[in-house]
Amino acid sequence: MSIPDTSHYKFEAARRALAEVQDGMMLGLGSGSTSAIFVDLLGQAMREGKLTAIRGVPTSEKTAVQARSLGIELIPLAQAPRLDLAIDGADEVDPQLQLIKGLGKALLREKIVEIHAARLLIIVDESKLSPRLGMVSPLPVEIIPYAWEKTVEWLAGLEQGCQAELWRAEDGSPFYTDNGNYLARCWFGDGIAHPQHLARVLADRPGVVEHGLFLDMADAVIVAGAGGIRILERGQ
Amino acid sequence: MSIPDTSHYKFEAARRALAEVQDGMMLGLGSGSTSAIFVDLLGQAMREGKLTAIRGVPTSEKTAVQARSLGIELIPLAQAPRLDLAIDGADEVDPQLQLIKGLGKALLREKIVEIHAARLLIIVDESKLSPRLGMVSPLPVEIIPYAWEKTVEWLAGLEQGCQAELWRAEDGSPFYTDNGNYLARCWFGDGIAHPQHLARVLADRPGVVEHGLFLDMADAVIVAGAGGIRILERGQ
Repeated sequence: MSIPDTSHYKFEAARRALAEVQDGMMLGLGSGSTSAIFVDLLGQAMREGKLTAIRGVPTSEKTAVQARSLGIELIPLAQAPRLDLAIDGADEVDPQLQLIKGLGKALLREKIVEIHAARLLIIVDESKLSPRLGMVSPLPVEIIPYAWEKTVEWLAGLEQGCQAELWRAEDGSPFYTDNGNYLARCWFGDGIAHPQHLARVLADRPGVVEHGLFLDMADAVIVAGAGGIRILERGQ
Repeated sequence: MSIPDTSHYKFEAARRALAEVQDGMMLGLGSGSTSAIFVDLLGQAMREGKLTAIRGVPTSEKTAVQARSLGIELIPLAQAPRLDLAIDGADEVDPQLQLIKGLGKALLREKIVEIHAARLLIIVDESKLSPRLGMVSPLPVEIIPYAWEKTVEWLAGLEQGCQAELWRAEDGSPFYTDNGNYLARCWFGDGIAHPQHLARVLADRPGVVEHGLFLDMADAVIVAGAGGIRILERGQ
């Protein structure tokens, strides 16, 4: 059995997304491996003069460092009068274009930036497609470090078959997000039965800062795979 | 016109609350001026041997420092097998015992601790009573520092007549909470028309960590005022 060449598909999806970018746009720049490929391609197109007057709002410190190193002009979200387009990866995409995001550890800033974008374009390789959220990816949840044990315990009781744990580095220390919080990950045995309900319950919980369910946010998803490239549009 | 002696009323409410504490209880210890009086009285009762084997879970660093200085044994929430009773102040109380809390800048830890308490007892002077939430107190909202300007702008658009601002110290610098976040305050001209709806909208917003609406949480409210002490029980 050969391992699917997902990095090639990620590249193809990112390259297709670049065609959506027009001169003068203010862009939301996602985080994670596929977004990093897009940012590389964007920097290259700007160096070659194929795109001009692009400015970006990064969704993580990591993306900011990368974009700066490529000479992409960055502005803080608070100073962006508008965001024409945000481009980001996802960890899972269901048939309604509902998403799980956050394995890049940047879900909160991604969500804050992307709710301000006129259009959110998601780029994935086909391994991210799923009939039901939670079957492909665990759900990352950004939580307050204070009494995190209680929050993780609560997460584990959310749905039957749910398992939750604090997300730790290899040395056992918890990961910190750019916002100084921890991350938990939740696995749902048979997927998430009711994503909208789960999103509500998570949002209501004190100690949960934000969750990786991005519902009704993606306008389009570019999927690259063995059969080429497909563009899924919301509501189609 | 004489200024009402609210500090005397706070003392009376706190003293009445102490009568609810029994030997061996695990207590949630609130934050703010009225809670501070309660913690003082609790420490005194323990020194005098009137209460024994009390342990406390503090809701702020400030309360922790105070309780420690009084010799009250503290344990982290994560290690508390149960919380028998939480006692805290409030900034506003409506006839259904719905609360606005957070002017003590500790709303998130208060909420995290108090959802784990078997019983939440609120202690206030009568100036905190209100026919409609938002008429007495602004609503504090704990927000992520990242792009806080966007969040405050969004808060200001929540309801007609709403005003919102970042909460700053006298020197102009933003207050940090114990969790490393900022606080905004929202004023509602005619009060909050639909607290449950507002709580939902706030909880759903990326960038909002937690809000000062404590709905369906208080089990009883001790109110001290010119006419003496009243105890309002939930659902009565």
